[in-house]
Amino acid sequence: MDNRPIGIFDSGVGGLTVTNHIIKRLSKENIVYFGDTARVPYGSKSKDTITKFAKQDIRFLLKHNVKAVVIACNTVSSNSISELKSEFDVPIFGVVKPGAEAAAEKTKNKNVGVIATAATIRSGAYEKEILKIDNSINVYSKACPLFVPLVEEGWLNEDITMLTAKKYISCLINKNIDTIVMGCTHYPLLKDCIKETVGCNVELVDPAYDTAVNLNNYLIKNNMLHDDSPKGENKFYVSDNTDTFNKICVQALGKSFNANIINIEEY
Amino acid sequence: MDNRPIGIFDSGVGGLTVTNHIIKRLSKENIVYFGDTARVPYGSKSKDTITKFAKQDIRFLLKHNVKAVVIACNTVSSNSISELKSEFDVPIFGVVKPGAEAAAEKTKNKNVGVIATAATIRSGAYEKEILKIDNSINVYSKACPLFVPLVEEGWLNEDITMLTAKKYISCLINKNIDTIVMGCTHYPLLKDCIKETVGCNVELVDPAYDTAVNLNNYLIKNNMLHDDSPKGENKFYVSDNTDTFNKICVQALGKSFNANIINIEEY
Repeated sequence: MDNRPIGIFDSGVGGLTVTNHIIKRLSKENIVYFGDTARVPYGSKSKDTITKFAKQDIRFLLKHNVKAVVIACNTVSSNSISELKSEFDVPIFGVVKPGAEAAAEKTKNKNVGVIATAATIRSGAYEKEILKIDNSINVYSKACPLFVPLVEEGWLNEDITMLTAKKYISCLINKNIDTIVMGCTHYPLLKDCIKETVGCNVELVDPAYDTAVNLNNYLIKNNMLHDDSPKGENKFYVSDNTDTFNKICVQALGKSFNANIINIEEY
Repeated sequence: MDNRPIGIFDSGVGGLTVTNHIIKRLSKENIVYFGDTARVPYGSKSKDTITKFAKQDIRFLLKHNVKAVVIACNTVSSNSISELKSEFDVPIFGVVKPGAEAAAEKTKNKNVGVIATAATIRSGAYEKEILKIDNSINVYSKACPLFVPLVEEGWLNEDITMLTAKKYISCLINKNIDTIVMGCTHYPLLKDCIKETVGCNVELVDPAYDTAVNLNNYLIKNNMLHDDSPKGENKFYVSDNTDTFNKICVQALGKSFNANIINIEEY
């Protein structure tokens, strides 16, 4: 038993979709969430900058004495996870490996599509992880930089969003994919649009779900579950006071939470 | 005569459109440009964060011994200019006042539209400046958060961009505006789309043009022009190494420049 909280961080608010899966599966755990809303997005930035920001994010979470850190951000998981794991002495969980495993398991025709931010696609992380499991799988990737601003604008089911999805994803449909990984934590909020674009024969993978399963298994195996509270306490921190946190909080968690503002550049 | 360089900064790369007007009008001046590509965008962030970042940006430019600072960013000009002017002992030029003056001069039916980032619109800065000049003018404002990512994606003349422009701007057209201020330095790159949306009877104001005129007049009046080089030297600095700088550099300045990377959090 380990009653310390679980730390979760993201470049901003997309990680709330991951938090939702973790809260559902591990409802007794205390959670400390940090969203770097002052420097969001990470997905258009360089590997060095992403790694530097992620180290500050983890240092902040460690101040809260967390027992594990979840990188609820595909861009950081893709670009920086090995450097972060070697720098910090705390179990660190990314979203890419669980997402890659789910995709490799789901595909039947061995044609998998990956949609994500520019930085995630550039890293090739999903492709590498999927090929490690089964190198006969064909992975087709496409960066979709407008999806995050469309979600943050709240245009989840607009014609413009549908057209944008078609423009990005049509090249993957032409490759006869039967599975598509939503490789950015904002994208599950566009699930309806993505589903309509790819058609009902293509399976959608949300790595957030598999990340929560993965974390749960680790905590059980290492006897690290919280075992004495009826329901965990959730604390939210952001680096800037913006409306987006509340908007996405309601969309991802079904209700709003108060977030405290901190200066992440101090860490 | 004053041969020190002119400092220009922006949240990222939009300020290159302002730099273009300044280079054209003041071709003998040396220019130091800083774009905060590691923390871009500012337009979705809070006033406090915008002001804090802008102070760091100016401190960096002052290390280069600049004779004047141009805030080539509507979000900073709208939210932080008075605080910056009181903090730093250097002439500081924003884009809002020149843009507001141009709009007040151009409108005939006294209905002016302003399109800009969420933070610029929230500040009400254009409205305040326009009403100071003529309080019988009606100012109608609309935040267009997707315009910046559309420009950065390079979708300048796509159907999606046209539909987005229609969705944002139709409420202004209904107000019978005869003048529209492009209150974000990225927006002039969407000029064709905006022009088609508002129709040929609506005048477009690009505050970058009027900012360059304003700066030129100030330097002449104060005998601060550079007078001994045939052509000025331009130095570009960014806080992150991204492809976007080069892409927008070519669009805004007609050719690419090398940018040096610096750590802005040190300032």
